[in-house]
Amino acid sequence: MSKHYILLADCKDEIGITSLISTIIKDTNSNIFHLDHYTDVQENENHLYLRIEFDKNDEVKSLLEKELTTKNINFQIFDAEEKVKTALLVSKEDHALSEIILRANRQEFPIEISCVISNHENNRKFVEDLGIPFHHVKVTKETKRESEDEITRICESYDVDLLVLAKYMQILSEVFVERHHLKIINIHHSFLPSFIGANPYKQAYTRGVKLIGATSHYVTEDLDAGPIIEQDVVRVNHRHSAQDMKHTGRHVESQVLARAVQWHCEHKVIVNGNKTVVFT
Amino acid sequence: MSKHYILLADCKDEIGITSLISTIIKDTNSNIFHLDHYTDVQENENHLYLRIEFDKNDEVKSLLEKELTTKNINFQIFDAEEKVKTALLVSKEDHALSEIILRANRQEFPIEISCVISNHENNRKFVEDLGIPFHHVKVTKETKRESEDEITRICESYDVDLLVLAKYMQILSEVFVERHHLKIINIHHSFLPSFIGANPYKQAYTRGVKLIGATSHYVTEDLDAGPIIEQDVVRVNHRHSAQDMKHTGRHVESQVLARAVQWHCEHKVIVNGNKTVVFT
Amino acid sequence: MSKHYILLADCKDEIGITSLISTIIKDTNSNIFHLDHYTDVQENENHLYLRIEFDKNDEVKSLLEKELTTKNINFQIFDAEEKVKTALLVSKEDHALSEIILRANRQEFPIEISCVISNHENNRKFVEDLGIPFHHVKVTKETKRESEDEITRICESYDVDLLVLAKYMQILSEVFVERHHLKIINIHHSFLPSFIGANPYKQAYTRGVKLIGATSHYVTEDLDAGPIIEQDVVRVNHRHSAQDMKHTGRHVESQVLARAVQWHCEHKVIVNGNKTVVFT
Amino acid sequence: MSKHYILLADCKDEIGITSLISTIIKDTNSNIFHLDHYTDVQENENHLYLRIEFDKNDEVKSLLEKELTTKNINFQIFDAEEKVKTALLVSKEDHALSEIILRANRQEFPIEISCVISNHENNRKFVEDLGIPFHHVKVTKETKRESEDEITRICESYDVDLLVLAKYMQILSEVFVERHHLKIINIHHSFLPSFIGANPYKQAYTRGVKLIGATSHYVTEDLDAGPIIEQDVVRVNHRHSAQDMKHTGRHVESQVLARAVQWHCEHKVIVNGNKTVVFT
Repeated sequence: MSKHYILLADCKDEIGITSLISTIIKDTNSNIFHLDHYTDVQENENHLYLRIEFDKNDEVKSLLEKELTTKNINFQIFDAEEKVKTALLVSKEDHALSEIILRANRQEFPIEISCVISNHENNRKFVEDLGIPFHHVKVTKETKRESEDEITRICESYDVDLLVLAKYMQILSEVFVERHHLKIINIHHSFLPSFIGANPYKQAYTRGVKLIGATSHYVTEDLDAGPIIEQDVVRVNHRHSAQDMKHTGRHVESQVLARAVQWHCEHKVIVNGNKTVVFT
Repeated sequence: MSKHYILLADCKDEIGITSLISTIIKDTNSNIFHLDHYTDVQENENHLYLRIEFDKNDEVKSLLEKELTTKNINFQIFDAEEKVKTALLVSKEDHALSEIILRANRQEFPIEISCVISNHENNRKFVEDLGIPFHHVKVTKETKRESEDEITRICESYDVDLLVLAKYMQILSEVFVERHHLKIINIHHSFLPSFIGANPYKQAYTRGVKLIGATSHYVTEDLDAGPIIEQDVVRVNHRHSAQDMKHTGRHVESQVLARAVQWHCEHKVIVNGNKTVVFT
Repeated sequence: MSKHYILLADCKDEIGITSLISTIIKDTNSNIFHLDHYTDVQENENHLYLRIEFDKNDEVKSLLEKELTTKNINFQIFDAEEKVKTALLVSKEDHALSEIILRANRQEFPIEISCVISNHENNRKFVEDLGIPFHHVKVTKETKRESEDEITRICESYDVDLLVLAKYMQILSEVFVERHHLKIINIHHSFLPSFIGANPYKQAYTRGVKLIGATSHYVTEDLDAGPIIEQDVVRVNHRHSAQDMKHTGRHVESQVLARAVQWHCEHKVIVNGNKTVVFT
Repeated sequence: MSKHYILLADCKDEIGITSLISTIIKDTNSNIFHLDHYTDVQENENHLYLRIEFDKNDEVKSLLEKELTTKNINFQIFDAEEKVKTALLVSKEDHALSEIILRANRQEFPIEISCVISNHENNRKFVEDLGIPFHHVKVTKETKRESEDEITRICESYDVDLLVLAKYMQILSEVFVERHHLKIINIHHSFLPSFIGANPYKQAYTRGVKLIGATSHYVTEDLDAGPIIEQDVVRVNHRHSAQDMKHTGRHVESQVLARAVQWHCEHKVIVNGNKTVVFT
């Protein structure tokens, strides 16, 4: 199979953008494999979202960059084969962590797990046995700032492009979130916006819901309110205690987070405001 | 097939209740077809829920009634063949209404649609063509009380056991709800407890969720907080406007409400506090 | 909202087709709202599938037709507002029929139910009460050919573009299928290719499956083997008799058929060989 | 929480069995927590399935054993806390293997992974790093019988009660299957009975299905036809190559197998003929 570039772009909608871009691609003798063009029709102004997957060649990238820079278009061009360097942050629970690591090991999608960072030690052996560096960064109320600075230093030392909170049970500061803007993906253990905050399974049990869920989203300053990438649910019944819901919910959490991370790494997600466009 | 009784019972758990009841049934030479015994294990005290389906005969009902009345057990005994007389309340939208009526016409479960009550006229022809009485009860802010009294009178005139709010877009008074305690089933057009209140699809669209849902519950004084019987979801994506979500959501609403009503009419639901036990 | 055309096209893949088409559209000052370009990468040759939704104007259609005709491209251009004239064929069961009719009545998607044709009389009243012409066409083994000819005549008299088999339990002749090539959508009451042929619920019950399903597909000469448009499943358990599976399965059948018909009428389906590309 | 026994029983239905058993339990002062009594109503004779979970005490087990042995009732009594000793058999693919092992490590349900047996070496490090014995048993066409004998010897040396084929890509002989009757659980990578045999994802791709699935079943002499414990599906679309379907399908395979193994180990499954009753 040929090597591909992936263009993600979005801008205020106007006539001719797809014509312009596809013609540049054609003119370099590059073939388009996928093109998703979606216009969000709003009252005030329409917004255009584009994802194009096309043959890689010497000219096409620089020509596109030159042309799109002159227009008011947000864009990024990715090499489809380049793996997204990722740091996994985890607390004690291992299920989301292991799901991502094992999928990465099977090379199911273009991700490279650069390191695992944890405020606990219990996952060290599992991670290191698989040949992945493990960093313990203790967090206390008093040292939160220093801890976050250390996490940032570790991430920078590996040159990571993505931080995945694979059940990292610490609330991140605004400063940290801002520094890694739209580079942090979280899994929340409820079907947001239900059961925001602590102990969602306890809340779900108390409310007597018949489905429990999980939500993967980009982390923003506003806790549990970032742009949603993926959600899913699983059926529960009266026999499920809050503890059973937690166990059952784990498997949905792992699957939902893994799909969200996969789509991010395949460059299928565009964020605008607090919403995502996911081209699957 | 033989004719059945269905016993629903719940009480503070103690040793020997299922032995007692199953032995009474055996002693009348009645066979048990289904027995669901579930104990909710709680910190303070355990609570027992029972559903038993067994052969109908002359003795068994009175013997059970005599014995269970002397104990502190909540119970009801239903004839499995007796249809639950039901009033459907609806505003303008017809989808939930028609789903219930058509399933009833196909005799998929033991329900009898005694009448349809609406604060609009638009569904009259559809309902009357199917041979079902249609009552228009206008509701205004000023006449809410009189309207509810009229609805109660109509329901009593048909001797109905169940009121189904099949997209009835009026908030019922506490007095009305209390009068028909645990006899009103509603469909809420969101995955509760997300998006309580008005315009849930607009809320869902604004939040950028990836699944929308519907929740069927018994109506209690506390708006949208009654015991949940059934919930389900359907996938949406960025292409769905709030209007599209409303259209897509309709079909889940109809299915979820129909399942909840079916289970109620099959005497598979026991309510305790704000939770349900559903033996499916 | 502006008025739209929808272009469906497919052809042997080559460089520049999307550039060509999007540039023609731009040159008439028409805006593109959705563009889905998908290349099926195969060993021998790649195949391109395109769906473009764009502003309607006087020039654009004839310019596209002129250009695409000179190339070896299969294409159709639809007016997004023109409803697809449809004949519904049904036997005794009413569930799929009523689902389609009621969605059409709510104008959920651009379909017009021109008539209902049945080999039974039982659905006449329901259909005619809703103001839709009903034609009874008796079918016997000896008169199959004449019956099919009559069905074709009725369809032609209404100038229908689509025949939907909403639980029409007759096997159609090759001649009839050929005459209405890719214009007939069927609902099969199993998760194809499981349980081909008669009595799929009985087969499912005997096999002890834990999910039952339904499949909507274009009808081809090869029974139950036509290109699949949509499938879905529902959970069953040991308590379900074959009869219960049939009842539960009905609701999936209705939903699956309705979605398939909707996508066809929204011009989101392209067929190639025995597969479909569905742009949802 | 108190310690429990679990009784699984099935027999030709007759009046009074649940009365008899629940009364024995009561007479030893043991409390019942769950009781599922299901009668399969058939034309010729009815069959009764029972699962009872109740307080453990010194008398109750022997009393039940004594009484049930005198009647023609198949039964087993399990200690709810005793873990089911299990051998995992695997070929090259690791996903189902790791799902089961990691859930076991998290003690989500009462299983003990005694050993892993494989006809390949590639999973040795992962397994041994987690402290689980790994046995490589080479299989060739000529040595199949000896290999199977060795597998049996290994299983016996660990005294295992369950063999889980976690993507073990060898067909087992009738002799082996008979020797471990209803003690082998397999995961088949299709929604059975669709796509029996080799390469189901290739078959699914060729047929153009819109959902792919996985099926977990007890292994019997008849390949892919044993009693089904659990099934599930996942949505695919035209963008999925056969290879993509394989990747996507893996995650359903792992989840479905894990649920089936969990229910078996929680003693929730009763097999009769080629069907299962699963009390969840």
